[in-house]
Amino acid sequence: MSENGSIAGIRHATVVGGGVIGASWAALFLARGLSVTLSDPQPGIDEAVLGHIAEAAPSLAALGLDTSRLTAHLAFEPDLATAVRSADLVQENGPERLEVKHAMWRTIEENAPAGALFATSTSGIPATEIATALTDPGRLVVGHPFNPPHLVPLVEVVPGERTSRETVERARAFYRALGKRPQVLRKEVPGFVANRLQSAIFRECVYLVSEGVVTMQELDDIVTSSIGQRWAVAGPFRSFHLGGGEGGLPHFMSHLGVGMESRWAAMAEEQVAFDEPTRRLLTEQTADFGGTVGELAAERDRKQIALMRALGETFDS
Amino acid sequence: MSENGSIAGIRHATVVGGGVIGASWAALFLARGLSVTLSDPQPGIDEAVLGHIAEAAPSLAALGLDTSRLTAHLAFEPDLATAVRSADLVQENGPERLEVKHAMWRTIEENAPAGALFATSTSGIPATEIATALTDPGRLVVGHPFNPPHLVPLVEVVPGERTSRETVERARAFYRALGKRPQVLRKEVPGFVANRLQSAIFRECVYLVSEGVVTMQELDDIVTSSIGQRWAVAGPFRSFHLGGGEGGLPHFMSHLGVGMESRWAAMAEEQVAFDEPTRRLLTEQTADFGGTVGELAAERDRKQIALMRALGETFDS
Repeated sequence: MSENGSIAGIRHATVVGGGVIGASWAALFLARGLSVTLSDPQPGIDEAVLGHIAEAAPSLAALGLDTSRLTAHLAFEPDLATAVRSADLVQENGPERLEVKHAMWRTIEENAPAGALFATSTSGIPATEIATALTDPGRLVVGHPFNPPHLVPLVEVVPGERTSRETVERARAFYRALGKRPQVLRKEVPGFVANRLQSAIFRECVYLVSEGVVTMQELDDIVTSSIGQRWAVAGPFRSFHLGGGEGGLPHFMSHLGVGMESRWAAMAEEQVAFDEPTRRLLTEQTADFGGTVGELAAERDRKQIALMRALGETFDS
Repeated sequence: MSENGSIAGIRHATVVGGGVIGASWAALFLARGLSVTLSDPQPGIDEAVLGHIAEAAPSLAALGLDTSRLTAHLAFEPDLATAVRSADLVQENGPERLEVKHAMWRTIEENAPAGALFATSTSGIPATEIATALTDPGRLVVGHPFNPPHLVPLVEVVPGERTSRETVERARAFYRALGKRPQVLRKEVPGFVANRLQSAIFRECVYLVSEGVVTMQELDDIVTSSIGQRWAVAGPFRSFHLGGGEGGLPHFMSHLGVGMESRWAAMAEEQVAFDEPTRRLLTEQTADFGGTVGELAAERDRKQIALMRALGETFDS
């Protein structure tokens, strides 16, 4: 962060939508010294957003950021056209419905400064489709965070077919300067990368629990004590590369590739769905987690911050 | 560890097989004060095992263990019958071929003390099948570590159909007292749990790279900066439970379950295999990792130990 409160040329951010994602972005932008206008027409949104920001503050402080005057440069402006008038960046977190996004982005483009950077937090709608509402589709890019944005480093930057190279580079530079770990995708695919990987593993998770091989809690314990710890420091490819000895990934593919292919074939035959018995089983087992959602989330975030400090991924390290 | 060098009643361990897994078990057992006999008829195995143990020593020291006289209680005995004569525990890490395991276990049962605990590190052969070679199949259980055993906490304890409850409990108690995080599986399934989950996610990893959405390095970066960090502290079920807001996992299943099911259906249509073009592509991209396998593995282990220290999972914390 430079001394005058701008990050990669962004001084004023307009956050559209005050749900969990929008409020988390707002908290991070504020903690990094930006001024923020939050726009959401919903009654009572001010209080809800201030509550989310207050919840995020201890994590932001633990990450090494100054949270003493976190909301000093926060304004609420329900009218979208007014809210974006002096924006350097618009980060949109509206409902995941194409017609709503189209209406929002038309208003944003008509009223924001010509040089403003346009990013949508959408997890499901390609920039290509959202951008059809814009006169200049080159300005819009997906900046998809992993929840919560103020804590998890990843931001998937996903250009649409007509997103300009300049927009992609500005978005990447901004998120990086903000302290995130942006990753530009080379192709637009549904669900982007992280959520696709989550879905892929979760199918097998649900299968193993519904077959009674392990409970949810036991499966989670298996993951945190093995692949989770590995993948926090080396991703799946690197892990298999290093698991194959000196021969690395080529050796792994030659020797274990066939076995893995037959595992894939067997998995394809598994019947997995969120049908009534499965939902009932998983819902029952949530009791094993031993805490409210709020308590468990706080514990998870505390542990993750400890992990990030250990890996040197905080702002003061 | 008690002062007389026994852990949960185990004082002397015989490690069968001096490959990477066997040597890593031996290093951990020694660092925890057990005496170890390593049995492997291969010429030159002594030097290879001593080399592996020397490589493991810095990690063991960083985990808080005393490695000053690590090999003082290590013996080599190529003859299996002789090697198991005074074993309290036999941890077998032989070749993954059923007939080889059968021959080994017959010899072990005939020569080991009646009270010795029998564990196999197999990742692929069910205890039920291995135990058909034994007069008392109740004595054998799978104790499958995640590589390398001296570092990664998980041990999957997988009983066969005839494994006795006492054997399961002894194995669990031993691995726990050793400092590992054992998890007893409720059913024998091929690949057990952790490797099945790895296979499930890896299929989608290979798909995304072969489609050109991201490179291997980019995918790894996405994982380490998002789901990896999450799953190091909260597994997939808990993560989705906490991602659904106050409604938890039931809310998640109601609202996002259908979307995930359709993602699963789409993934089932993806063609993924370690065919020649895929192997070539992945092999080319290993250059991006920027180091030898040894260098990269050392970096990964160093980071994982930092993570384990942060999470309070070392011996001195």
